[in-house]
Amino acid sequence: MKVNGEHYRSIWRDGATGEVRIIDQRWLPHQFKMVTIRTLEEFEVAIRDMWVRGAPLIGATAGFGIAEQMERDPSNAGFQTAYEVLNATRPTAINLRWALDRCRDALMPLSEGERAEAAWALAQEISDEDVGINKSIGQHGLKLIQDIAATKPAGEPVRVLTHCNAGWIATVDWGTATSPMYHAHDAGLPVHIWVDETRPRNQGALTSWELGEHGVPHTYIVDNAGGHLMQHGQVDLVITGTDRTTAQGDVCNKIGTYLKALAARDNGVPFYVALPSPTIDWTVRDGVAEIPIEERPAQETTHVLGRDAAGAVSTVQVSPDGSPGGNPAFDVTPNRLVTGLITERGVCAASAEGLAGLFPEKAG
Amino acid sequence: MKVNGEHYRSIWRDGATGEVRIIDQRWLPHQFKMVTIRTLEEFEVAIRDMWVRGAPLIGATAGFGIAEQMERDPSNAGFQTAYEVLNATRPTAINLRWALDRCRDALMPLSEGERAEAAWALAQEISDEDVGINKSIGQHGLKLIQDIAATKPAGEPVRVLTHCNAGWIATVDWGTATSPMYHAHDAGLPVHIWVDETRPRNQGALTSWELGEHGVPHTYIVDNAGGHLMQHGQVDLVITGTDRTTAQGDVCNKIGTYLKALAARDNGVPFYVALPSPTIDWTVRDGVAEIPIEERPAQETTHVLGRDAAGAVSTVQVSPDGSPGGNPAFDVTPNRLVTGLITERGVCAASAEGLAGLFPEKAG
Repeated sequence: MKVNGEHYRSIWRDGATGEVRIIDQRWLPHQFKMVTIRTLEEFEVAIRDMWVRGAPLIGATAGFGIAEQMERDPSNAGFQTAYEVLNATRPTAINLRWALDRCRDALMPLSEGERAEAAWALAQEISDEDVGINKSIGQHGLKLIQDIAATKPAGEPVRVLTHCNAGWIATVDWGTATSPMYHAHDAGLPVHIWVDETRPRNQGALTSWELGEHGVPHTYIVDNAGGHLMQHGQVDLVITGTDRTTAQGDVCNKIGTYLKALAARDNGVPFYVALPSPTIDWTVRDGVAEIPIEERPAQETTHVLGRDAAGAVSTVQVSPDGSPGGNPAFDVTPNRLVTGLITERGVCAASAEGLAGLFPEKAG
Repeated sequence: MKVNGEHYRSIWRDGATGEVRIIDQRWLPHQFKMVTIRTLEEFEVAIRDMWVRGAPLIGATAGFGIAEQMERDPSNAGFQTAYEVLNATRPTAINLRWALDRCRDALMPLSEGERAEAAWALAQEISDEDVGINKSIGQHGLKLIQDIAATKPAGEPVRVLTHCNAGWIATVDWGTATSPMYHAHDAGLPVHIWVDETRPRNQGALTSWELGEHGVPHTYIVDNAGGHLMQHGQVDLVITGTDRTTAQGDVCNKIGTYLKALAARDNGVPFYVALPSPTIDWTVRDGVAEIPIEERPAQETTHVLGRDAAGAVSTVQVSPDGSPGGNPAFDVTPNRLVTGLITERGVCAASAEGLAGLFPEKAG
């Protein structure tokens, strides 16, 4: 989407030099920096230290990392080294392993001389596929927004609340939850986005930055505010992303999503979850009972990252010394609270039947 | 309650000098400072600039401010000046006006020579009454905690979640929501408190400081976490305070309280609200429809106050430049989500009937 009026992806190959460029997300939303990553070690650092983040973007980055390595050392040993180094960067990101396996399956049968070119083509394909999936999600979600807009006086914005950053910089482009919003905005349909801060890591600041740069009206709110806004008719629709969706449509997403789903139900506000189908875990049914929730470092809770008075990105401690912090990173929203799932194949009910209808080849 | 092992109130008259001392709360939870306030101007600044905060404590402070003034200028004009100066400090704090009116009614009939002594006695009485009310709330709430403890294996803590700071430093002592917790802890009943951070102003840091200093086990969590904890059986009971309770038992409290009440209902967790009866507004019934919600400065949302690496209390900006912040400061929890109200006269249902049963002289 747009930054400073120009269109960007979160990762791309420079047309002139052939080098891989990324947005270095460590400095967002306060500083917009791009960086070239060249060696396997640089790709390792970029993924591990979260210069890039978001499962789809991590997968795409791994694809380009393999391609760079094939340029330098297309041998089986060279590939294996790159596979292992990249696979160890973020062990829980499902797309990482998936992208690496796809590269292995495609490249190993080729001669060494063919591998570099094929790897570049494959990396580009993985990127483009992600863009295509997210674009489809956006087109399906756009219809939901259009339906709501049709019930309002002309020109009155559809107000969408979102949580965390399921935005374009967590993917290659468009994002998942944000894709319907960008599609609506680009189609000239007025929208206004309520952006949850999303403590502890404040990914709402990233979503706000994205929306602001693309020109989408929005308001940054604390996570506590959404229930009140819904009570007073200020939210027409909730759209969030998801890290993992179960075969019965339970949604594991950033901590706090469940509270917004409860408020949506209590106030008759539709609650949708946007997801690319690779994030569906067909082996899990009951998300609350079966999905283990990562407990992340307490410091994320007790401290806050931001820009200080001198303009530097720095951290302040919010809680007192000696008070331990608790930091469950995700929660599970049961399918009964989810109005529908927005996938690249269309919108379905958050149920085993709904998902099986769209993905008959996957449902057991 | 205790700080560094010694018992404090949040305001008191020094036994040796007769001067009024307060805990200067601007530096909490990072620095514990006490300060003497002497002149009318100092009382004005202390209330206006939130050296003291919390409706009950503000009322008590106003009482002492009047007494200091009567020491210097016990004339009608002197009283009137103090009344007006103090009343203008925090126009929405109901206890402020109530304390000042009470001083006027008690002091104006007296001769100038009698006023100082009477004013000191009255200020002390206002303070002591607040302590007595909160102590009663704690004793009634303690029974709820004892009942839950009785259902658990011996020694296993009762886990209480609270939101914001309805703690002893918002009152003269004990606090409201915290009073049952301190009573349980002091009675040797093991409790563990989940303390909501309470963005945007992070009053959970104050609650954590209080609990830590008094030795009560607790964990500081982001506001997003409580739903997940309840889903997984980690919360036995919620107790919050309230800024205003309606005649039918709707509860207006710090933004985000409603979301916790929804999660409590969804998981069968009892949700109690502790309140001194002066915060009941008998003129309002439907809190969601009737209570106007204060929209506070956006900067509270876009920025976070904490302690920086150098140890200084400072502010960082979390959201990007150009993203407007929205900051509704309170929300209303409908009575249907409230298990009971803990008052100084006992626990009652959150309903017109429940409140009328405890306060028949007030219910219309």
